[in-house]
Amino acid sequence: MTRFAFTVEFDGRPFMGWQRQAHGPSVQQRLEDAILAVTGERAVIHAAGRTDAGVHGLAMRAHADVAKDIAPFRLMEAINAKLRPDPVAILACEPVAGDWHARFSCIGRAYVYRIANRRAPLTFERGLVWRVIQPLDADAMQEAAQILVGRHDFTTFRSAHCQAQSPVKSLDRLDVARDGDRIAIHAAARSFLHHQVRSMVGCLALVGMGRWTADDLRAALEAKDRAALGLNAPPDGLYFMRADYPPA
Amino acid sequence: MTRFAFTVEFDGRPFMGWQRQAHGPSVQQRLEDAILAVTGERAVIHAAGRTDAGVHGLAMRAHADVAKDIAPFRLMEAINAKLRPDPVAILACEPVAGDWHARFSCIGRAYVYRIANRRAPLTFERGLVWRVIQPLDADAMQEAAQILVGRHDFTTFRSAHCQAQSPVKSLDRLDVARDGDRIAIHAAARSFLHHQVRSMVGCLALVGMGRWTADDLRAALEAKDRAALGLNAPPDGLYFMRADYPPA
Repeated sequence: MTRFAFTVEFDGRPFMGWQRQAHGPSVQQRLEDAILAVTGERAVIHAAGRTDAGVHGLAMRAHADVAKDIAPFRLMEAINAKLRPDPVAILACEPVAGDWHARFSCIGRAYVYRIANRRAPLTFERGLVWRVIQPLDADAMQEAAQILVGRHDFTTFRSAHCQAQSPVKSLDRLDVARDGDRIAIHAAARSFLHHQVRSMVGCLALVGMGRWTADDLRAALEAKDRAALGLNAPPDGLYFMRADYPPA
Repeated sequence: MTRFAFTVEFDGRPFMGWQRQAHGPSVQQRLEDAILAVTGERAVIHAAGRTDAGVHGLAMRAHADVAKDIAPFRLMEAINAKLRPDPVAILACEPVAGDWHARFSCIGRAYVYRIANRRAPLTFERGLVWRVIQPLDADAMQEAAQILVGRHDFTTFRSAHCQAQSPVKSLDRLDVARDGDRIAIHAAARSFLHHQVRSMVGCLALVGMGRWTADDLRAALEAKDRAALGLNAPPDGLYFMRADYPPA
């Protein structure tokens, strides 16, 4: 039995999310089906994060145990061939120690959230960015974002369906940068609550529009109450970008 | 009657090309239909370039004459509303002089061609980039590209269907740059022959793969013979990027 670690890119638009669902396509199901087709084995694939419906992956990390004697490169190529025509691709595949776990060994996660700050309807990127029509002040957003960095009770920014035991998380980074009509928001932490990034982005957008001040954001955080949330950004712009692990 | 200049973004995937066709959807037809729906007028829209099926537009310039008394911003918004759900959007709209012509007044055109130089199948960008599996030497491509810059007979790089009177064109710029697994090729000229950019890119890719030397590229140019073409790149990666006009 060999444990293989995978780096997975996926377009979340056609999926109900990463995790296998009874009533619709998921990235997990597609990957497990592809592994079955290649190896004849019903492997279970574990991921660093379980993204929601419509959320994308640039480099999700995942692992599965495979009994078949197959080289990593051949396994990757064969899975990719079976994944067609779904918009899921294995970018890298390597054998790892038997106790390496994509989710439990992960010590850092990074997301990027992409906004198209423009009036015109989207063409190439429908479902791949959040279009915000109102002009956003990215500098004000970046300044306000620093209020959220650090160790806080993020109850305000947590979905009612969140299964985490504690709402207290340490946010290592929340950076807002504009490039033309694009705004990218980079978030990094050991782990995130359910909807945390989208909820933070939604409230930062209110700051960018001038509808919220930085003090309003601070008050929302301190309220520790989901009802204090200003806006939950749509899944369209959210990408799981990186998972970090201790050196082997 | 007011002449309006438009800046148009479009995803070329669902279209048979810019120009109106008897047997399939075109960007021109969609735009003319939208103008008709907004103004009740059967305007003819003229563009700086007529892109092929599957070729995209980041900022195509076009114009049309409209009798209805309507402000540019309202015209743009109304056309964009009528264009839904097609992946075509007007980014800018302004009144111009009655003798301004999107095609005949244009003194410079720029394209970008995007390559994804990777093994993994595409997810987000199917039809939006050319995936090349073989590792490409972008420095060798950039060096060879300079052979094509300047005034030449581009017969080798011209489609059999090209309607231009002369195969002699002045290529102002052909630059190849790598960013991670992405290679962007920027081309600029007063005007291009049919398939010229795709044909140049295809041959540069052969250089990048090591299948052609720079001397092979020079020989292909000097052959002035379509049969000397090594490879015509697919439309997927081609974007009409900019049209230049004399200051008003």
